[in-house]
Amino acid sequence: MTSTASSLPAYQRLIVNAEHVVPGEELAARLAQGNPLRIKLGLDPTARSVTLGWAVVLRKLRQFQDEGHTAILIVGDFTARVGDPSAKSQTRPQLTREQVRDYASHCLPMFMDVLSKDNLEVRYNSEWLEDMDLSDVLELTANYTVAQMLERDDFSKRYDEKRPISIIEFMYPLLQAYDSVAVRSDVELGGTDQLFNLLVGRDLQRAYGQDPQIAMTTPLLVGLDGVQKMSQSLGNFVGIRDEPQDMFGKLMSIPDRLTEQYASLAAWLDEAQISEISEAARAGGPTAGEAKRRVARHVVALYHGAEAADASERSFDRTFKQHRAPAEIAEAGIPPDAVDGDRVYLPRVLAELGLASSRSEARRLISQGGVKVNGDTVTLEDVPLDELAGHVLQVGKRKYVRLS
Amino acid sequence: MTSTASSLPAYQRLIVNAEHVVPGEELAARLAQGNPLRIKLGLDPTARSVTLGWAVVLRKLRQFQDEGHTAILIVGDFTARVGDPSAKSQTRPQLTREQVRDYASHCLPMFMDVLSKDNLEVRYNSEWLEDMDLSDVLELTANYTVAQMLERDDFSKRYDEKRPISIIEFMYPLLQAYDSVAVRSDVELGGTDQLFNLLVGRDLQRAYGQDPQIAMTTPLLVGLDGVQKMSQSLGNFVGIRDEPQDMFGKLMSIPDRLTEQYASLAAWLDEAQISEISEAARAGGPTAGEAKRRVARHVVALYHGAEAADASERSFDRTFKQHRAPAEIAEAGIPPDAVDGDRVYLPRVLAELGLASSRSEARRLISQGGVKVNGDTVTLEDVPLDELAGHVLQVGKRKYVRLS
Repeated sequence: MTSTASSLPAYQRLIVNAEHVVPGEELAARLAQGNPLRIKLGLDPTARSVTLGWAVVLRKLRQFQDEGHTAILIVGDFTARVGDPSAKSQTRPQLTREQVRDYASHCLPMFMDVLSKDNLEVRYNSEWLEDMDLSDVLELTANYTVAQMLERDDFSKRYDEKRPISIIEFMYPLLQAYDSVAVRSDVELGGTDQLFNLLVGRDLQRAYGQDPQIAMTTPLLVGLDGVQKMSQSLGNFVGIRDEPQDMFGKLMSIPDRLTEQYASLAAWLDEAQISEISEAARAGGPTAGEAKRRVARHVVALYHGAEAADASERSFDRTFKQHRAPAEIAEAGIPPDAVDGDRVYLPRVLAELGLASSRSEARRLISQGGVKVNGDTVTLEDVPLDELAGHVLQVGKRKYVRLS
Repeated sequence: MTSTASSLPAYQRLIVNAEHVVPGEELAARLAQGNPLRIKLGLDPTARSVTLGWAVVLRKLRQFQDEGHTAILIVGDFTARVGDPSAKSQTRPQLTREQVRDYASHCLPMFMDVLSKDNLEVRYNSEWLEDMDLSDVLELTANYTVAQMLERDDFSKRYDEKRPISIIEFMYPLLQAYDSVAVRSDVELGGTDQLFNLLVGRDLQRAYGQDPQIAMTTPLLVGLDGVQKMSQSLGNFVGIRDEPQDMFGKLMSIPDRLTEQYASLAAWLDEAQISEISEAARAGGPTAGEAKRRVARHVVALYHGAEAADASERSFDRTFKQHRAPAEIAEAGIPPDAVDGDRVYLPRVLAELGLASSRSEARRLISQGGVKVNGDTVTLEDVPLDELAGHVLQVGKRKYVRLS
């Protein structure tokens, strides 16, 4: 991709994986002037991990850095306490200062996994928001109308449905928009659900006598459930610091119809690769599985390198595909008093090898389908000896023993 | 009335001239406990005078003082800069700190014309509002919803008509409501157009863990035009420090149908007196005029004493009723060259006595009805000598000469 991409004008390169660019002609014009632009991305630390969802827009920011522009990463330590009501259907609880500090200390190093240290300004929005007094706040609120705020989809829906919107929720868009005034951004990046907020920033800069920023959004990555936006509170996420094996495994669990989206937004493959993968995913069966595997390998490689990607793929294949246990599996002999001729009493094996706390618990595990041999669920308590000796006994997802 | 009134329970005495008491039973209950209550009245200094309109609610506050309760007079030096959107149909311009300081320095001594110095706390709301930071403001805004705010009549009307409501206008009701939290008021007084604001105070005190205040409103005095609320910006007002003669004259100019309202809200006459006056006003003619005169005399006496009231009435009678000029009127002889036998050429008289700049202007004034003799408009330029000699010649409203 790189050789093709570098011959494209900057504008064409930078709108890859973008959903809205408002207004596009202004971005093209500013880029054409050739000066480094100030590209704002505000992220509120509201959880401890950085997900592949956040990484979409972080990588977009990185792209601007690579083109010589300045990334202004705003850690929304103040706004995180207020809570962004965007696309939320209910009034959110506020976070404490301590919670936010904890989240920020975890997230910031992870942001740096994606961003470059060059062309970077990291700012905390408490820097200007904490010192605001009532007069400043009033000046801010004088610049926006109730009707403009209620134009936002989720607000208007809630208002029409008579569900409460706290006035503090009107404050959030204004505060994060004021960040744009404070850092004099030329472009602001965000997920598509941030478009309204980004445009408030544009309006507010104009009200404060600045050139209005351009709003650029990136699509929201769908989570592992295949339905909802990837989100830490929903649990349907891949963290960018997840272990390579976990990452690979989680990525292999997405529905085939998401493979193409992950190929572009999570793996950042080029157009030609994406269309190959898209075709393969539509073919279904092993071809689709192979395409997904290719995406998963690319994503793991982005965060852990090619070697870790290969290793995680091999580990995945051993554990899940070939129904074999991982390489580091322990060996154990079948306890002799569990053997009766050519039959083995399985609950006794499980209890004596410490895979269950007692024989009765072992029986319960078997009846619930929690015990497998070579990946196949065992439903009987008496098992032929030759079906156990030399095979892998598995309890739950994590306990494995190779029986000898 | 006093002898009757003092035998009434306090609740009955205090709701005289009140429009809403919300909730009435709570006020009755708190009064019955016999402890001094904290009675808040917030007034934003937005003009230099105190009108009879403001005096309605100031006198209500004084009444509470006289019953042993504590008046908390809040000079809204901060909120005046924000501007109360109540009953305004448009977004208001904000006042500067200097303008407000100027207005406050004029108004405060006038408030004291009505209030007692005992049982009084004067507070400026900048004391607590100026130090609010963004976190405090956010806490405030978290306690109220957009829908609650849009329930207010004027907001909902403007919103429905798609006229802009700035978000700062949502802040005003919250800020003045926070005053109630800051001073821990038991009762808040205001004009009827303040009922919404007063109830926000009640809600907010509850949210901040205080006993919610009772809201008591007084009716809005109609201005001299007989149509709009008395207001300095409309010019239809009587200031409580207007000169006695001006006050008397202005009060005599109100339509007869307002005599009863002024008898209660401006003169604070008792019920028996008000019904007499009401009956007389309905009778029309000289009876109605006499009733209005009685009200005017009472109002002037309230602010300037009985003697000044009598003097202003006599002056009014000389100037307006008996069509005679005021006592201090100048005398002048009829210029001889204006006299032709028993006729006088009036334009020449006016020009030579300096009542008009020229004979032609004098002719114009006569033709426009601007010249009077003994209060009767003169329409001819040639006037019989005996209709002028010894009489008062008047040009416009202010120039008088007694001709000899």
